[in-house]
Amino acid sequence: MIGEHSSKQYDQELEAIRSKVLLMGGMVETQFEQALNCFRVGDIAAADKVMADDHAVNQLEVSLDDACSHLIVKRQPAANDLRTVMATIKVITDLERIGDEASKIARTAKSLHERGVTGFAHYDIIRTIGKGTSDLLHDALDAFARLDGKQAMQIIAGDEIIDHEFRTILRNLITFMMEDPRTISSALDTLWVAKAIERIGDHAKNIAEYVIYVVEGRDIRHSKPAIQEG
Amino acid sequence: MIGEHSSKQYDQELEAIRSKVLLMGGMVETQFEQALNCFRVGDIAAADKVMADDHAVNQLEVSLDDACSHLIVKRQPAANDLRTVMATIKVITDLERIGDEASKIARTAKSLHERGVTGFAHYDIIRTIGKGTSDLLHDALDAFARLDGKQAMQIIAGDEIIDHEFRTILRNLITFMMEDPRTISSALDTLWVAKAIERIGDHAKNIAEYVIYVVEGRDIRHSKPAIQEG
Repeated sequence: MIGEHSSKQYDQELEAIRSKVLLMGGMVETQFEQALNCFRVGDIAAADKVMADDHAVNQLEVSLDDACSHLIVKRQPAANDLRTVMATIKVITDLERIGDEASKIARTAKSLHERGVTGFAHYDIIRTIGKGTSDLLHDALDAFARLDGKQAMQIIAGDEIIDHEFRTILRNLITFMMEDPRTISSALDTLWVAKAIERIGDHAKNIAEYVIYVVEGRDIRHSKPAIQEG
Repeated sequence: MIGEHSSKQYDQELEAIRSKVLLMGGMVETQFEQALNCFRVGDIAAADKVMADDHAVNQLEVSLDDACSHLIVKRQPAANDLRTVMATIKVITDLERIGDEASKIARTAKSLHERGVTGFAHYDIIRTIGKGTSDLLHDALDAFARLDGKQAMQIIAGDEIIDHEFRTILRNLITFMMEDPRTISSALDTLWVAKAIERIGDHAKNIAEYVIYVVEGRDIRHSKPAIQEG
């Protein structure tokens, strides 16, 4: 009976941590969307807010890591239960890095706007990759919330599309720069934004891989999964 | 007596894991140095080897994560002991990412060489940041091996120098590109290499922060430490 009771408490405490991780996920998702919006309209106050919000995300990372450690020490989970905590610890790290990348986008948006670059033409270049990655991150958090292995597999395939899109953007920006060297500086800024978005896609993929690790009990990192349709 | 016996076994098993993590650290250190050398001399076979070695590093990440989980389940460490395992799990993630960045440098070196760009002039641009980051990574692994909090603090300060150096390289490369737009493509390749090096510096800093977390029992991530001299 004590074992069962303890296991129920473990489940409850784990769910409380997972809820807070999802809250953190919502925070970085908002950061990312607001950063893209800053880049689009050149809103300096909004850019400052994205960068300020990063502080709260960082604090959440530290306190959630701590909560995971406490849970392990107090409840001493069995191998199967521990797997979820381990995956959660890894997800927390990825979420924090997403917050960092969103801050970088906001900083670049602010810098472009302050130098009087309107940003509208530049935003067109990253519009598709921005929307695609935003959806991918949303789905990754959804897969983590519902521990949906099938959805997680689709995210891994989706990240390959993002990577391909990034390479296309890179080629296009090189062409712009060669045609008009005066655009080099602002084209590079756009490239950094595209790179930050591509990295957010990588983190969404990492989260998806941890979901599969929890659901299927196998570690698919660094293996090439066969994506199935339907 | 059983408690003491169990604790000794825990220490031994933890040390065995830490030894393997240091082995992994040595592997990524070698990968990074060889990648820089490929960039310098344009050795395609060596670049291929760096990329192939990444597979072994990735496998080591998965198996070491697994070993950490097993240790926690089997030995059920107290809070203080768990801290070292948690930090080790985080260090493993950073080492794997360093391997990724080294592979990217090797891939770019290969691409530059195959396009007939000699690379010597480009190497001069990243020589200092490459050497500085290589030293920083070495010191970070050393601090992790000896759990030396003082050395770890110096690494955090050292990473700021690397970041500053990266921004100088970026400004210089923009000037080159504007003066001669034909260099844009190869200058961007050099920029990606510099960026990968700068990221390796970030990972070395992360490792240093985990060392301080173990040694001093405080989490200094996201705080601005006051670096002391002497």
